[in-house]
Amino acid sequence: VRLAVIGTGLIGGSIALGARGAGDMDVVGFDRDPAATGRAAELGALDRAAGSIEEAVAGADLVVLAMPLDQFDESCRAAAGHIGEDTVVTDVGSAKAHPVAVGEELFGARFVGGHPMAGSERHGIEAADASLFGDAFWILTPTPATSSDAYRRVARLVSVLGAKPIALDPVVHDALVARLSHVPQLAASALVAVAASAGDREALLGLAASGFRDVTRIAASNPDLWVAILKSNRGAVIDALEGLRGTLGTVAELIAGEHWDDLHGFLARARSARLDLFAKPVHDGEPVALSLIVPDRPGVLAEVTTAAGHIGVNIEDLRIVHSTEGGRGRVELIIAGQEPAEKLSAALHELGYSVHLGEID
Amino acid sequence: VRLAVIGTGLIGGSIALGARGAGDMDVVGFDRDPAATGRAAELGALDRAAGSIEEAVAGADLVVLAMPLDQFDESCRAAAGHIGEDTVVTDVGSAKAHPVAVGEELFGARFVGGHPMAGSERHGIEAADASLFGDAFWILTPTPATSSDAYRRVARLVSVLGAKPIALDPVVHDALVARLSHVPQLAASALVAVAASAGDREALLGLAASGFRDVTRIAASNPDLWVAILKSNRGAVIDALEGLRGTLGTVAELIAGEHWDDLHGFLARARSARLDLFAKPVHDGEPVALSLIVPDRPGVLAEVTTAAGHIGVNIEDLRIVHSTEGGRGRVELIIAGQEPAEKLSAALHELGYSVHLGEID
Repeated sequence: VRLAVIGTGLIGGSIALGARGAGDMDVVGFDRDPAATGRAAELGALDRAAGSIEEAVAGADLVVLAMPLDQFDESCRAAAGHIGEDTVVTDVGSAKAHPVAVGEELFGARFVGGHPMAGSERHGIEAADASLFGDAFWILTPTPATSSDAYRRVARLVSVLGAKPIALDPVVHDALVARLSHVPQLAASALVAVAASAGDREALLGLAASGFRDVTRIAASNPDLWVAILKSNRGAVIDALEGLRGTLGTVAELIAGEHWDDLHGFLARARSARLDLFAKPVHDGEPVALSLIVPDRPGVLAEVTTAAGHIGVNIEDLRIVHSTEGGRGRVELIIAGQEPAEKLSAALHELGYSVHLGEID
Repeated sequence: VRLAVIGTGLIGGSIALGARGAGDMDVVGFDRDPAATGRAAELGALDRAAGSIEEAVAGADLVVLAMPLDQFDESCRAAAGHIGEDTVVTDVGSAKAHPVAVGEELFGARFVGGHPMAGSERHGIEAADASLFGDAFWILTPTPATSSDAYRRVARLVSVLGAKPIALDPVVHDALVARLSHVPQLAASALVAVAASAGDREALLGLAASGFRDVTRIAASNPDLWVAILKSNRGAVIDALEGLRGTLGTVAELIAGEHWDDLHGFLARARSARLDLFAKPVHDGEPVALSLIVPDRPGVLAEVTTAAGHIGVNIEDLRIVHSTEGGRGRVELIIAGQEPAEKLSAALHELGYSVHLGEID
């Protein structure tokens, strides 16, 4: 099987490395930046570096389009005239309706949209890693026009890379990522904007608790990256924003009208959905929170987690809340089950920590 | 100084314990639940258990009203007739405009509103702890009508308990907590509701990344507690919800109109505000993220954090992302500075972990 990878950055480079590692694929690569193509070959990601898109796709059985979103249309058209009749084409864009429309126009039944759910914190070929997709989901977006043979060939590549393919309609995919990623990002930024406009830093610091910290963590993300993502999923993002605004409007009406039972119902349904969505597959017990004040220095976390390891207690989640005054912080541990939580609490108490133990609030 | 504490739950009980521990206060307590009053005395929180509010406040120099929000008005009125002319009264409610209005009506210049920013994950006297307020902020809400002597006496109690008093106007306080706590809570629930309505569980799971997990974590909070909190700050919450809806509407218009530069500016300003708000007081370097796949079992976290402790690298933040497939998870560490991050990365690599190192995305 000859695989052509167009765009040898983090994603394309990792696909190339993984495919070559699997042993039975001949991998040709091209990147608009010749240095990136060369480096991909040096790092062992490519059997052969191509000098152009046309050269890379000629004779390929499977083409992966992994260039930045804003180069997709142009690269697609450059590849179109030089691709074999049976060649299957896929992409890795984070929105799917637009690339699928362009891809099907140019490649018909042989285009299968894809979106690997992995690895965004680094960029470029230096960050590429054959194991990037291990255990990750990889969305594929076949349509009624997609050839089942083409789908099978792309799904096989996904499996070879260690990921789990999930098939979704491209429009459903875009609506879901708008709701699960793009609009939460905008909501986090909007919550920061609304808060920051309302008080001075000392007052904000005094009142901002760990909940606000969690909700707004992603507001610190890279704006360049996010503008490109939001551009690529414009329609679905606008729809989902309207959905969120509508829901918040309903909530405001419930509060204004003092419909407390209905508000309770809304919060309770959201709570169930959230717990259900991120429930661990194997539950050992109800989650219990342990909170302790610790000095803010190297080694403390090791003391706490070693104590848990010694008595065989698994830490489900751990968060560090730094004191704004410096020198001290709070560590919050989540343990599944009252009994292991009490065991760990006792062990930490013996080590001299003051431990609070309670339900998740 | 004689201190009367009305409501000996988590907050009232912790105040009583801390005040008694300071040595120079005589603490009288009352709780509507006689068992809670008795238990507070048994645990050493009280010098004397009173049989009624009237008995508790008689002869007190300082009264702390720490009952649940929905009993505030009634308890206030019960205390009013039995309180000395110089007695100072404070409360601990999480919204301030309403209690300050009621308190000033009944106690005039001697009422000082308060809101300790500590300890909500447990309830009841069993959870009380003299060190609950250590290092915490404690908002006080004096008005032009407040006596400066009364303010000084309440601020002194706050300092004795180990907390740092911050003075804020009650209306400003309510606007800020609406924006920093109450509306983020509603936004998290609304984001879950909007997402849950859009797809089946497998599709949601496949697409929900760690960002969604963070943003919506607080949607799993207790709805009973939240309805009571939202009731107590109704007007400010409605205002702040409208502020959020307006901001989201502006964002939707920027996207619809393809004003990408303005959208970039909005995201960049929110990013700066977020980074500024939770910046650690002492920066050792730019934050660097380390991400590694680990088996989901006791002891692994200890191995990772011990490695950091051994080489003197302080872990600024740590998050555990469980694989939805079970058996494996991902640990994300935040380290201040490229050099210590690389040192830790190398150490973990030697232990056999595959480590990704990069900027915060």
